[in-house]
Amino acid sequence: MDLQLILDQINSELRPLLGTSGGKVASYIPALARVSPLQFGIALRTCEGEVAQAGDSAVPFSIQSMSKMFSLTLAIRSLDEALWDRIGREPSGSPFNSLVQLETERGIPRNPFINAGAIAVADRLVSLGDANVELLALLGRLCGEPIRIDAEVAQSEADTGFRNTALANFMKGFGTLDNDVATVLDVYFQQCAIAMTCEQVACAAGYLCRDGRHPLAGVPVLSSAQTRRVNALMLTCGTYDAAGEFAFRIGLPCKSGVGGGIVAVVPDRLTLCVWSPALDATGNSLLGRQALELFVAKTGLSVF
Amino acid sequence: MDLQLILDQINSELRPLLGTSGGKVASYIPALARVSPLQFGIALRTCEGEVAQAGDSAVPFSIQSMSKMFSLTLAIRSLDEALWDRIGREPSGSPFNSLVQLETERGIPRNPFINAGAIAVADRLVSLGDANVELLALLGRLCGEPIRIDAEVAQSEADTGFRNTALANFMKGFGTLDNDVATVLDVYFQQCAIAMTCEQVACAAGYLCRDGRHPLAGVPVLSSAQTRRVNALMLTCGTYDAAGEFAFRIGLPCKSGVGGGIVAVVPDRLTLCVWSPALDATGNSLLGRQALELFVAKTGLSVF
Amino acid sequence: MDLQLILDQINSELRPLLGTSGGKVASYIPALARVSPLQFGIALRTCEGEVAQAGDSAVPFSIQSMSKMFSLTLAIRSLDEALWDRIGREPSGSPFNSLVQLETERGIPRNPFINAGAIAVADRLVSLGDANVELLALLGRLCGEPIRIDAEVAQSEADTGFRNTALANFMKGFGTLDNDVATVLDVYFQQCAIAMTCEQVACAAGYLCRDGRHPLAGVPVLSSAQTRRVNALMLTCGTYDAAGEFAFRIGLPCKSGVGGGIVAVVPDRLTLCVWSPALDATGNSLLGRQALELFVAKTGLSVF
Amino acid sequence: MDLQLILDQINSELRPLLGTSGGKVASYIPALARVSPLQFGIALRTCEGEVAQAGDSAVPFSIQSMSKMFSLTLAIRSLDEALWDRIGREPSGSPFNSLVQLETERGIPRNPFINAGAIAVADRLVSLGDANVELLALLGRLCGEPIRIDAEVAQSEADTGFRNTALANFMKGFGTLDNDVATVLDVYFQQCAIAMTCEQVACAAGYLCRDGRHPLAGVPVLSSAQTRRVNALMLTCGTYDAAGEFAFRIGLPCKSGVGGGIVAVVPDRLTLCVWSPALDATGNSLLGRQALELFVAKTGLSVF
Repeated sequence: MDLQLILDQINSELRPLLGTSGGKVASYIPALARVSPLQFGIALRTCEGEVAQAGDSAVPFSIQSMSKMFSLTLAIRSLDEALWDRIGREPSGSPFNSLVQLETERGIPRNPFINAGAIAVADRLVSLGDANVELLALLGRLCGEPIRIDAEVAQSEADTGFRNTALANFMKGFGTLDNDVATVLDVYFQQCAIAMTCEQVACAAGYLCRDGRHPLAGVPVLSSAQTRRVNALMLTCGTYDAAGEFAFRIGLPCKSGVGGGIVAVVPDRLTLCVWSPALDATGNSLLGRQALELFVAKTGLSVF
Repeated sequence: MDLQLILDQINSELRPLLGTSGGKVASYIPALARVSPLQFGIALRTCEGEVAQAGDSAVPFSIQSMSKMFSLTLAIRSLDEALWDRIGREPSGSPFNSLVQLETERGIPRNPFINAGAIAVADRLVSLGDANVELLALLGRLCGEPIRIDAEVAQSEADTGFRNTALANFMKGFGTLDNDVATVLDVYFQQCAIAMTCEQVACAAGYLCRDGRHPLAGVPVLSSAQTRRVNALMLTCGTYDAAGEFAFRIGLPCKSGVGGGIVAVVPDRLTLCVWSPALDATGNSLLGRQALELFVAKTGLSVF
Repeated sequence: MDLQLILDQINSELRPLLGTSGGKVASYIPALARVSPLQFGIALRTCEGEVAQAGDSAVPFSIQSMSKMFSLTLAIRSLDEALWDRIGREPSGSPFNSLVQLETERGIPRNPFINAGAIAVADRLVSLGDANVELLALLGRLCGEPIRIDAEVAQSEADTGFRNTALANFMKGFGTLDNDVATVLDVYFQQCAIAMTCEQVACAAGYLCRDGRHPLAGVPVLSSAQTRRVNALMLTCGTYDAAGEFAFRIGLPCKSGVGGGIVAVVPDRLTLCVWSPALDATGNSLLGRQALELFVAKTGLSVF
Repeated sequence: MDLQLILDQINSELRPLLGTSGGKVASYIPALARVSPLQFGIALRTCEGEVAQAGDSAVPFSIQSMSKMFSLTLAIRSLDEALWDRIGREPSGSPFNSLVQLETERGIPRNPFINAGAIAVADRLVSLGDANVELLALLGRLCGEPIRIDAEVAQSEADTGFRNTALANFMKGFGTLDNDVATVLDVYFQQCAIAMTCEQVACAAGYLCRDGRHPLAGVPVLSSAQTRRVNALMLTCGTYDAAGEFAFRIGLPCKSGVGGGIVAVVPDRLTLCVWSPALDATGNSLLGRQALELFVAKTGLSVF
C-alpha cells in the first residue's frame, strides 16, 4: 500500500474544496478566528517508522482539545487506575462544555475528553509537579524536537474562558479538584494553546498504534492496557457529539480539536493527523473528517 | 391587638425549644458555623411606627440572602422595568444555587432571589456606581443608624464561594453580566455578609408594608407598583424551595437567609423580622418559621 | 364600590380589542380550535351574595385546567393532608406537561396544578369512588344547577393526549398512581372537558373567598386552613409559567385554563371569573389577564 | 488457535463462581426473576463456519435488548439511511429508559439501542408490514431453525411496561411514531421476549463479523457499510451505561440484554454469545462480562 500516494490523492481531492465547503473557523478567540481556512495538511507515521505527508503538513496549528489526549497520557503514566477516582470513562451525551451532567453527577466529569474532565486531569497533573513543563517535555521527547505553547492563544483562552472557569469552580465546590482553581485553569488554558504540525502530532501520538511504545525510542510511554484505554476513550468520546458518526464513518479512535486538527489511530498500523481549520456544526474539522473517510475508503483500514 | 404581648408569647413558647428542635446552623463557612443556635429574636414595626420586640431582637446576625431583597430594591429604584431585561421573575423549581436551569435558559436567571439572579442584580448595581457604599447608605437611611458588613464573613464567603463563582462565570459566558466577574462577586459576597438586628431589619424593610414609603421619613423608597413587585417575588420565590409551604402556612411575603433570619411583610400593616440560627432541611430558620406560623395564627394576619 | 359598573367598564374597554389582540385560541384539539375568539365574559360573586356580570358571561366554555382547582377541592375534602403523600406543593419552574422534573424527583409531581399532579389527584379520586359523578355533583351543588361534561371535547382530549398518557404511565411506573392508568386518564380527560359559564364558575368557586363556606348554603366545603392551602397553591402555581407575573400584576390567587377562562379570588371579598378564548404565549387568556389587571387597578383589591 | 479449548477453559474458570459473584437476576417481571442464576453458556461461530460452545450453550434464554440489534438490522434492510430521519446515532449518556433527553431533544431518541430508540425502530417495522412475523422469519433464516417468542414473558413485559408505555406516548406526542402506540408496543414487548440459545445467537448474528453476509447462505443480510454502522453502534451504545468500560476492557462491538446474554463481534473473525443470568449494577451479565474479558485476554482479539 503506497501511503504517500494515498495522502497525495486525498490532498488533491480535497484541496479544491477549501473555502467552498461551508465550514467555519472557530471564532471564540481572535487568535483562532484569524487563521486562514484555506489550509489543509495531512501526515502519518506507521509502526515501522515510515512517514508520509501532504499539503500543509508542516504548518503549526493550535492543537486545542487534542491536547487532552496527551495530558491524559501523562496523568495515566503517573496515576494509572487511581486517575479514575473522580473522573468517569463513559460517553457524555451532552455538549463538551455542559454543566448539567456535572450537577446531576455531583461534580464528577463523565470522561477526560469533555472540558470538565480535562480540567480534572489538569488538576491531577498540578498535584504531580510542574504540569506544563512535564507535558512539553513529553511532547518534545515524542516528537524529537521542542514543542511550544502559543502565548497569545493561551492568554485569549484565559481572557474568555468563562464557561471553563465555571466548570472548574463548580467541580472545586464538589471536591473534584485538589488544587487552586486559577492554577489548574492556567495549566488547562496553556495546554489548549500548544502549537504543533500534522507531522509532529502523527509522530507524537505514535505510541497509540504501537501498544504504548515510544515511536522513536521504543521505550514504553504507556502499558498495552493503558494504550487500549486511551484508544477506547477516543473512539467513544473523542469527537464531541459526533462520536457515533465517527465510529460509523471512520471507525478509528480519533481525537479532534477546534483548531481544526484530528488525530486518528489504526491500532498496530499507523497514526494519522489531519488539519484544516474550518469546522462543521459538531466542532470537528469539516475537511479533516472527509479526509479520514477517504483514507479509510482507500485503505480499508477500520476497526470494524 | 397587643402586638408586644403577642411577640412576648411567641418568645415564651419557642425559647424552650432552642437546642432541642433538631435544626442545624449553616456550616459552610466557619464564621457562621460558630454562631450559637441558642438564640431567638423577633421584632416588628407597624405602618404607624409602633414597634415591638422580644428575645434576642437586638443581636446582630448575618442577613445573608435577606440582602437580596435590599439589593433588588436598590436596583429597581434606578432601573425600574429595565432591570428585568436579563433577569426573570418566576419561581425556579430548582435549588437556589443550581446551574441546570441557567444552562437550559441560556444564562438568564429565573428570579432575583436565587443566587444567580442576585449576582446579576449585583452586576447592575456595579454598573450604577459604588454598589456596596450605596447599599449600606440605603440601609443606614432606612434604619436611622449605620449598618456594617462583617468583614470576616465576607472573606469566608469569597474563600469558599466556588459555586457562586461558577454561576457568575457561567452567566458572564452567556453575556448576562456586564462587569468583571471578580468585581461583581466581591459586591455579592459583601452584601451577604451585612450584619443587622431583627429590630433594624423590621425597620429597614418597613417600606414594603407602606406601599414603598420610607418607614421613618415617609419619602418614597419604591413606587407602589414596585413595592407590589418585590412583595410578589418574596411570596413566590423568597424562601428557597419552601415558597409553596410558606405561602400556605404563613401566607405572607417572606425572605429568608441562611444566617437564620426571615423577614415577613403584612401589606398595609407591618413588617416583621424573626431570627434563630438553626435551619431546617430547606435552609430556612426552623424556629423562625414556627414563630411566623404562631404570629399568623394569633393575629389572623395573612394575605389569603 | 359599584361592582356591576366596574365590570361594565372593563367589558367596554376590552371588547373592542377582540380579534385585534394577537392571541391565539388553543388548537391542539378541533373542538377547542373552532371556538370563536371574539368572545369576552366576566362575572363575580361577593361573599355577601352580590352578583355582577358583563359580556358573554352566560356562555359555557371548556374549563380545562380550572377543573384542577375543583378536583383538588374534592380530594382535600376526603383526604386532607394525606393527599400530599405523593404530590408536592411547590412551584415547578417547568412547563405544565414536562416529564423532566418528574424523572428527577422519582415520579412525585411538583404540585396538583401541573398535569402530572392533577392526574395524581384524579387517581386518588378514583380510589374514593365514582370520581366524575362526585365532581359533577359537587359542582352542581356549588352552582345550584346541573353541570355537564362536553363529550366531544373529552373524546378529543383522550384521542390526542399522548403527553398526558406518558405522564400517567411514567408515574404508574414509579408507584405514584394506585389505579389503572386508563381509568385515571378517563377521569382526567373528562374533568378537563367540563363546560361552565363565567357566572357558574364565579359562584362555584365562591367558597374560596369565604374561608371554605358554601357560597349558597353556607355549609363548609373546605376548612379555613384547607381553603388557604388552595388559594396559596393558586397564587404560586395556578397560571402555568406566569405565576410570578400574575402575582405581581394581579396579586390574587388565580387558576387559568387553555379554554380561556381564569378564576381569581379576593379573600374575604369575592370570586371573579373571566373568559376570552384567545391565549397569550404562556397559555393564559390574553384579554382575561388584562381584565384582571383592570379590575385590580379599578378596585385596589390585591393581596399585596 | 483452538477456540473450543478456549471456551472450555473459560467455562471451567467461571462456572465455580456461579452463585458466589454477587450479581442479581433481573426481577422486574416474574418470568425473568425465577430464572436460575446458576447457569453459564458460551458459543461462537467463525466466519468460516467453525463452531465452538461450552456450558449451557443450548439452553434458551430471553434475549431482551439483544433483540434491538436484530430489529435494527431488519429496519436498515428496508429503510437504509432513511431510518435515521427521527432516530439518532450517538451515545446517550443517560439511563436506557430515561425520558429527560427525549424531552430536551423534542422526542428524537438518541440511538436505536436505548428503549425509546428501539420503540421507534419497532414503529418503522410496523409501517413496513407484520413486524413480528418478519423478525422471527429473519432469525429463523439466520439460525437455520425456527425461533419463538416466550408468550409469558411478552405478557409480563406488557403488564409492567409503564415506563416504555410512557416513552412511546411521549414520542407519539412529538410525532416520532407513525403508528398506533399500542400496536408498536406490542411489537416491542414481543421482540424483547424472543427466546434463543447462545448457539443460535452466535449463528444468527454471524453476518456482523462477515461484512453483512449470511452466516449460512452467504447472501447479503446487510451491506458492508450497514454492517459497520451496526457494529459501531454496538461499540458506542450497546451495553447501557457501561459502553466506555466495555470498549476498554473488551474492545469489541457488544450488545447485552437483561436476560443475561451478551453478543460480541470480532470483525472478520467470529461472533460470540455468552449468557449468565446474574447482572451487575449496570444491567450487564456479570459473568458474561468476565467471560468476554477472558476471551479477549486469551485470544488477543480486540479492535484496539
